[in-house]
Amino acid sequence: MTHKRPVISFLSDFGLVDEWVAVCKGVMLGIEPEAMIIDISHDIPPFDIKKGALVLADALPYLPKGVHVAVVDPGVGTRRMAVALEVQDGNVLVGPDNGLLAYAAGMLGGAVRAVEIKNERYLRPSQRQTFHGRDVFAPAAAHIAGGLAATELGPVIDAATLSGPPWPEPLPENHFVVCEVIDVDRFGTLRLNAGPEQLKSLGIDASHSIDLAFGHREVTLPVGGTFDDVPLGKPLILFDSANVLCLALNQASAAEVYDLAVGDKVTLRRGRDAGSDVAVTAAR
Amino acid sequence: MTHKRPVISFLSDFGLVDEWVAVCKGVMLGIEPEAMIIDISHDIPPFDIKKGALVLADALPYLPKGVHVAVVDPGVGTRRMAVALEVQDGNVLVGPDNGLLAYAAGMLGGAVRAVEIKNERYLRPSQRQTFHGRDVFAPAAAHIAGGLAATELGPVIDAATLSGPPWPEPLPENHFVVCEVIDVDRFGTLRLNAGPEQLKSLGIDASHSIDLAFGHREVTLPVGGTFDDVPLGKPLILFDSANVLCLALNQASAAEVYDLAVGDKVTLRRGRDAGSDVAVTAAR
Amino acid sequence: MTHKRPVISFLSDFGLVDEWVAVCKGVMLGIEPEAMIIDISHDIPPFDIKKGALVLADALPYLPKGVHVAVVDPGVGTRRMAVALEVQDGNVLVGPDNGLLAYAAGMLGGAVRAVEIKNERYLRPSQRQTFHGRDVFAPAAAHIAGGLAATELGPVIDAATLSGPPWPEPLPENHFVVCEVIDVDRFGTLRLNAGPEQLKSLGIDASHSIDLAFGHREVTLPVGGTFDDVPLGKPLILFDSANVLCLALNQASAAEVYDLAVGDKVTLRRGRDAGSDVAVTAAR
Repeated sequence: MTHKRPVISFLSDFGLVDEWVAVCKGVMLGIEPEAMIIDISHDIPPFDIKKGALVLADALPYLPKGVHVAVVDPGVGTRRMAVALEVQDGNVLVGPDNGLLAYAAGMLGGAVRAVEIKNERYLRPSQRQTFHGRDVFAPAAAHIAGGLAATELGPVIDAATLSGPPWPEPLPENHFVVCEVIDVDRFGTLRLNAGPEQLKSLGIDASHSIDLAFGHREVTLPVGGTFDDVPLGKPLILFDSANVLCLALNQASAAEVYDLAVGDKVTLRRGRDAGSDVAVTAAR
Repeated sequence: MTHKRPVISFLSDFGLVDEWVAVCKGVMLGIEPEAMIIDISHDIPPFDIKKGALVLADALPYLPKGVHVAVVDPGVGTRRMAVALEVQDGNVLVGPDNGLLAYAAGMLGGAVRAVEIKNERYLRPSQRQTFHGRDVFAPAAAHIAGGLAATELGPVIDAATLSGPPWPEPLPENHFVVCEVIDVDRFGTLRLNAGPEQLKSLGIDASHSIDLAFGHREVTLPVGGTFDDVPLGKPLILFDSANVLCLALNQASAAEVYDLAVGDKVTLRRGRDAGSDVAVTAAR
Repeated sequence: MTHKRPVISFLSDFGLVDEWVAVCKGVMLGIEPEAMIIDISHDIPPFDIKKGALVLADALPYLPKGVHVAVVDPGVGTRRMAVALEVQDGNVLVGPDNGLLAYAAGMLGGAVRAVEIKNERYLRPSQRQTFHGRDVFAPAAAHIAGGLAATELGPVIDAATLSGPPWPEPLPENHFVVCEVIDVDRFGTLRLNAGPEQLKSLGIDASHSIDLAFGHREVTLPVGGTFDDVPLGKPLILFDSANVLCLALNQASAAEVYDLAVGDKVTLRRGRDAGSDVAVTAAR
């Protein structure tokens, strides 16, 4: 059940009208003719690193083991690094160090090794125009897919110095944290720029509910493990597989019910006590 | 000339911006790494079962033998069944039982066996959110592509109980049938919700012409086998490979000439006699 | 490092909503099941031969060796020929003879042999409706990919009689040439319908600068080999790999700076002397 052909998944904001995607695939296949290239998306809105980061992270857990190259790169031509991140299980992420890869890397367990891609031996000579998808990221991904050690592409760098996810840090205050909606999925679940560490800083553990304030509204929600921990249509807080805090309803849209969208602020505070007005019905 | 790699064709309304298509492909390749996945379309308008059914049926006669998975599923989470339909020649259709597969199955000769997909051994455990493309249809298709008998996926059901094509039944009256335009293809040919059985019920056979009434207009048309049975620019009635009644012009647009669109009513009636005002010029 | 699977690249204006692309791929895979099909683009605006020609030519230099089939074909059903063009290195271009292939063929060194595709033995029998993508171009491409000599598809024709690129000829006057912008790439570089022969006719060689006039504006530019031949943000004239004359800025948008778009006229004239007001800084 192993893959005989090396797998390269590919995400970009290149769009499907022009030749950019095909050019990158051609470069990859020129280096590794047997590669199986899986498109994740090429219709990420231009330069939208946040959307690219979310789509990449949501796809990767389901893809075959391989090299995953992502290019949403408003800083091309500036000093941002090109990087290859080795994560758990032999997966490697390739792309610009602008936050695009950070959330997905976290979801896959974090980078165990990071390399700056700069060995010109494996890149295409620079051309008339800067196109790192073609000249840097595609060749790097294809060489790794073909068996080259990522460390051949350049020096190992400290993973702690890499850019973090492309959204603002939550603002911690004395007894609360001001967060922001960073994503609304198609089910209406809201993702916030917060994780377990924010709850910990507020002294919230599994026995507490959470008070949320947004607009002129306040709600108190339980923390659950899955949607089914609350009755149909009821709300809860849970963490996704990248440990991002989500505000969701069981089979209904939190975005609609609470009228919240990307960029809206949500303040988190420790609830008075566990199981207050909305009880977690079951722990599975 | 046989396909060494199992073929899975894939149609959905997931769009090409988000990760949904890649997630389903990843699941399929995780089960059957050597599958050749052929995209039919992922830009079916959301929840448009009718359009999905037509695109699927128009593509399948040209695709290699294999498993064809289609997901346009407004009823996900309700009691509609997930089904696998074995049709002629070893092709299998996988998707929701909401009419999406019915027209294509008919075009391929009808389902010779139908199975309800429900054996959890071959499906993905349910997740936080309902996504049957990923958890039911993709795994079922990949297992069949890999050689699993469809009957391993669940109980055989009576094909006669499956949903029919996703458009209204024609309304038979005493001497006429009220039909509806269900599709206009890019050549302007109009497809109606009628087949040979409607003509038979009106006592029409190959020797008769057909009177059609729509809006304030009436026309009498011959029944032909191909477009060339009438002169250039002239109209005729014919049946497509799924035995759907079509109103067409030889190398011109029936939709434009008759100003008809999807949803418009067309009344069929037996013509006075064969070869009346528009003669069939040749039977090839 | 050779490709075990034959490569077919595919460009069209079929769009990604309907079944047309899948139908053509199905036909190709039915003839050559092991083909690796690489999509260049299917979102060329309908009937836009010029855009199709540019995207095709910009993709091909990066693709693996193989058969490249392109279908943007407003003249389908008229007397325009279907052709297969053998170019350097074993690449073959397949498509309508309407100019779509001409620019790419030139970029790859020109057609060394041209064949009119008309041998019905290798085409699909004509159907109810004209769809040469499915019935002519897809089968021809797949047969060539599978090893059939292009000359089996029909008679060799004189490559000099093929349609030229799909844009107007430049208008030569006594001491100047009136050109037109035929493309603006995503970097803002402007391509004109001119090549080295226009400069030669004006007596311009590498030692001269060029005077350009457009709108109410005149500029004098050096001719360079690469963008880096001028300082950052400075303009120059250069030729792309198909020897098309380009008006560009080093890391800036000529289209924005000069407010020029596709269809705008630009007059070329010999500059007074080389290195006038904008000097070429280096020849690499």
